[in-house]
Amino acid sequence: MSANHHERRRRLSGLLPPAGVEAILVTKPVNVRYLTGLVSSNAALLVTAAGGAALATDLRYFEAARKMCADIEVIEGRDTAGVLARRAGPVRLAVEGHHLPVAEFRRIAPEAEAGEPLPLSGLVEEVRTVKDEAEIDLLRTACAITDQALADVLAAIRPGVTERAIARMLQGRMLELGAEKAAFDTIVAAGPNGAVPHHSPTDRPVAPGDFVTMDFGALHAGYHADMTRTVMVGPPADWQRELYELVRTAQRAGRDAVRPGATAHDLDAAARDLITEAGHGEHFGHGLGHGIGLEIHEVPFLGPDKPGRIEDRVPITVEPGVYLPGRGGVRIEDTLVTRVDRPELLTQTTRELLIL
Amino acid sequence: MSANHHERRRRLSGLLPPAGVEAILVTKPVNVRYLTGLVSSNAALLVTAAGGAALATDLRYFEAARKMCADIEVIEGRDTAGVLARRAGPVRLAVEGHHLPVAEFRRIAPEAEAGEPLPLSGLVEEVRTVKDEAEIDLLRTACAITDQALADVLAAIRPGVTERAIARMLQGRMLELGAEKAAFDTIVAAGPNGAVPHHSPTDRPVAPGDFVTMDFGALHAGYHADMTRTVMVGPPADWQRELYELVRTAQRAGRDAVRPGATAHDLDAAARDLITEAGHGEHFGHGLGHGIGLEIHEVPFLGPDKPGRIEDRVPITVEPGVYLPGRGGVRIEDTLVTRVDRPELLTQTTRELLIL
Repeated sequence: MSANHHERRRRLSGLLPPAGVEAILVTKPVNVRYLTGLVSSNAALLVTAAGGAALATDLRYFEAARKMCADIEVIEGRDTAGVLARRAGPVRLAVEGHHLPVAEFRRIAPEAEAGEPLPLSGLVEEVRTVKDEAEIDLLRTACAITDQALADVLAAIRPGVTERAIARMLQGRMLELGAEKAAFDTIVAAGPNGAVPHHSPTDRPVAPGDFVTMDFGALHAGYHADMTRTVMVGPPADWQRELYELVRTAQRAGRDAVRPGATAHDLDAAARDLITEAGHGEHFGHGLGHGIGLEIHEVPFLGPDKPGRIEDRVPITVEPGVYLPGRGGVRIEDTLVTRVDRPELLTQTTRELLIL
Repeated sequence: MSANHHERRRRLSGLLPPAGVEAILVTKPVNVRYLTGLVSSNAALLVTAAGGAALATDLRYFEAARKMCADIEVIEGRDTAGVLARRAGPVRLAVEGHHLPVAEFRRIAPEAEAGEPLPLSGLVEEVRTVKDEAEIDLLRTACAITDQALADVLAAIRPGVTERAIARMLQGRMLELGAEKAAFDTIVAAGPNGAVPHHSPTDRPVAPGDFVTMDFGALHAGYHADMTRTVMVGPPADWQRELYELVRTAQRAGRDAVRPGATAHDLDAAARDLITEAGHGEHFGHGLGHGIGLEIHEVPFLGPDKPGRIEDRVPITVEPGVYLPGRGGVRIEDTLVTRVDRPELLTQTTRELLIL
């Protein structure tokens, strides 16, 4: 992957001069990983506008770093940010202002020869937004594991099984299928609990007539999958059929609107307008979706008040939901990638109502 | 747990005046959880030296926060730190300098009436060091799940099974036994890989004559267990028996030295001196252990250059290791709690060499 990492650093270098700085000190671990391949809890990376790079990490990761990053200077040290602030020399330095703690900033600021570094936020995240095909391959695998885990667990979702037990089955099955771990804390919400979008699984047993919402995903080689399905236990009531159909239609409309050049606002509106027209606008209290990759939530964020347009090769989620306090809720979420013609669906599980 | 949370906030209030501030804005999620019980990705807490408290969180967590924290003011808002910086009024404010990003600090600083807030580091962590019995109960359960998971997986550790498969079995079994999730990324290192203290599991199959080191733990109700065992696959060679016996003796000596009042340095030395005398000083390249609780690594840290004394009711790990490049390594780690008489072992698995 060394060629990819070099290309990623080159793209970052290209963003630096307009920001008025000659080098950036990258300290957020996932950004260091993205730009070098190194997975470390203590590493920092210096990238210059001129295209240079130096990596610092401590003794625990030093040999791995030297092997993985043979094309750049690797420095051993515990105070990785301080080492690189000194190494930067007399250049105007930026730091990752959205990540570097203020105490750490004040500690290393005197080390920068050219004066106090400039806190910049989200520059590497901007570079990370459009994925290369190697990254999309990893996401595809993460989503396939997630799909398969749900398929394997469906038969066990029946009256009497608790939310917590379902969450454990999903997580265990993802591990057996090769996931590193769960990409985030699994949500399982049965019956009225489904009205809480971020419900934590409890010992509540599933009962006939429950909607059961499962929001979960696999982590594969650092890349996150994110899927939600709401299933029925036993025959649905009329309000449940209607609610499911509304969310399914809205989710479909959201996906259909995904194309390079669409605005975050328009994507959100494609789904939200249908829900609002059906009288449930106030019951859809979150954005339509978010970028996904080395982090579970990345730019771009899709919502009524979100800026920007979406580009080609950007993995995002599309996840409208309607939540009825005291009764329950429905959310349907896929991970997909923008492509020139039509989006590529990474999540493959059916969006039809599954009645168990 | 409301009484506990009130008592915890009271202890934090008591530390504020000596630091020269009248209130602290707590933004690190695990610290907010400790002081309120609220688990949220977007919450902040204001605690005043006078004993007052106000919590801010967004709509997603607001109802849960109001129920959980009925004894304090709860404010709804997205910009939780900004809301509380304004709410603080004309008091000298501290922030968590080791956590609050510099960009966030600069954004909220103008909101503080009494001038730029003071970045303080580690104040809540200091309060968290000595655990109450409710916390120790949760750690005891986390460690029991961890012990049982190893017991259940031992029979499957045989030639041909990969490091990765063993890691997945441990993680899956912990979930089945009731863990929320793994407390940290499981380490399984077979044969020469055991010479790398933080080795990530690979597809290397276990072979006869291998040491297999497993470092893992369960998360239970937010509390972390941490255990390491090195086992033998097939009969050990003489060097392996000697190495294991050395680490076992050193780990025992480290545990025996644990008592309230002991210094971090002396605890470390109790184990390290034996390893150094055996000629392996340079092969034990990390500290003896660390505090553990709501975070996997907390104060106190035990090592030759670590300051301070350990108090009563402080959960720590004791985990000496010897790593021989190209050959393999041994580490034995328990989680235990300082008590007045002798430490309470939370990890129960035998420290004798298991030959599988």
